[in-house]
Amino acid sequence: MTPFSVRSPRVVAARKLQRRRARDQAGLFLVEGPQAVREAGGHVVELFGTAEALEAHRDVVRAAGTAPRYTVTDAALESLAETVRPQGLVAVCRALDVTVKEALARRPRLAAVLCEIRDPGNAGTVLRTADAAGAGAVVFAGDAVDPYNGKAVRASAGSLFHVDVVRDPDPLAVVSAFRDTGYTVLAADGYGPVALPDAPLAGPTVWLFGSEAHGLPPELGSAADHRVRVPLYGRAESLNLAAAAAVCLYASATEQRSRREVL
Amino acid sequence: MTPFSVRSPRVVAARKLQRRRARDQAGLFLVEGPQAVREAGGHVVELFGTAEALEAHRDVVRAAGTAPRYTVTDAALESLAETVRPQGLVAVCRALDVTVKEALARRPRLAAVLCEIRDPGNAGTVLRTADAAGAGAVVFAGDAVDPYNGKAVRASAGSLFHVDVVRDPDPLAVVSAFRDTGYTVLAADGYGPVALPDAPLAGPTVWLFGSEAHGLPPELGSAADHRVRVPLYGRAESLNLAAAAAVCLYASATEQRSRREVL
Repeated sequence: MTPFSVRSPRVVAARKLQRRRARDQAGLFLVEGPQAVREAGGHVVELFGTAEALEAHRDVVRAAGTAPRYTVTDAALESLAETVRPQGLVAVCRALDVTVKEALARRPRLAAVLCEIRDPGNAGTVLRTADAAGAGAVVFAGDAVDPYNGKAVRASAGSLFHVDVVRDPDPLAVVSAFRDTGYTVLAADGYGPVALPDAPLAGPTVWLFGSEAHGLPPELGSAADHRVRVPLYGRAESLNLAAAAAVCLYASATEQRSRREVL
Repeated sequence: MTPFSVRSPRVVAARKLQRRRARDQAGLFLVEGPQAVREAGGHVVELFGTAEALEAHRDVVRAAGTAPRYTVTDAALESLAETVRPQGLVAVCRALDVTVKEALARRPRLAAVLCEIRDPGNAGTVLRTADAAGAGAVVFAGDAVDPYNGKAVRASAGSLFHVDVVRDPDPLAVVSAFRDTGYTVLAADGYGPVALPDAPLAGPTVWLFGSEAHGLPPELGSAADHRVRVPLYGRAESLNLAAAAAVCLYASATEQRSRREVL
């Protein structure tokens, strides 16, 4: 069979998913590269690959299950990919976000809310770090970046498929839902009155993170139980978002585990 | 006086510093934006600004001391800057790195060695995080990115001027120098046998970080007292470099401080 070209209708349709509006309408998004496609597994609904890549990554093709697979030309593959080296595979995946209620029903010990974070690289990195720290849910709240944005997907390094991802336009409603379920709500805030080593970290905790440019909206700081700062021991004026989130989330993870061992 | 244009010899000479070779030859580098120029302070040897910016940021001009300042056209300023919004100021600064010996003479309790890290954004971010965690020295070791690369300078957010920055082509010699001075040498390694919470963190410590792409060269892992992994509590396969460095450096900072309070 002739490989699909850049202008084949299926390729054209998939390529449209590079735009947010098309993703939202279809409830679909793109992932690229063998590693990410392997992680996507059962979420794959269509797999595009060069003949060479489909042959080289049979395990990945198997992980995509019964999803139809299409052999495409190098040019068609490149047109679907957003990176310089897509390594021959791009998959269309089903959106996998759940509601806050669904995420809370699984009672994660640790969760993170990204409030109005616009930078896809930052958002994806924090998602990856939250997963590493054992968080069970990550909420993209307010006017935040689309978690299915190509750059966010790549920065998440597969973690998009590991944790419950929630999209919710109303950060305050998200905070209320966590609070009503018994969570300690901690707002990461460089100027917060509580230093991280003094924060109550042992119980079920949700962290709120704002954008590096604008910080956390004041009403969200007020809605938290504590506004917590990562101490600055040197002369840096602040930490970047990804570093601050890593320090906060790992402080929680470590404390939660040391307490559980004692109990 | 007419503002200097894009082709004025001083502007041309300064603009050459966007290239590493010119920086190395001259022992000079560029910083841009009022915040960074303020931090640079006494390291500034020439200050370029639009008439508007020089007027608006008089405190920054003062911080640059006796360094000559030149009014330039908008186009000349843009040609010197690497960002889209340089905010009207670019300074030529004197290289400020010191030798390992000089850095060790100040006995920092905490230090970081970036081994063969090529990505300027990553390197600058780790420098900023190390400063925030109270590290006194950061070594760019081996075939690492130039700390005076524009993107590294910007990612460091001023921390380049806060800590002792060392450039050394020989990472093993750097490790030996720290070890001979009594430091615990910890290699950050996702597959290390020691989990971070079990690592000895209380004493004077130097952390070794490798690139995200290639990790730490094996001979450096072997040269360390311990190879330490940040535990992965969820399903993420790894942390990115900046997040791992933040978690490791803050674990040290926190432990060193809690011990000192006890003693």
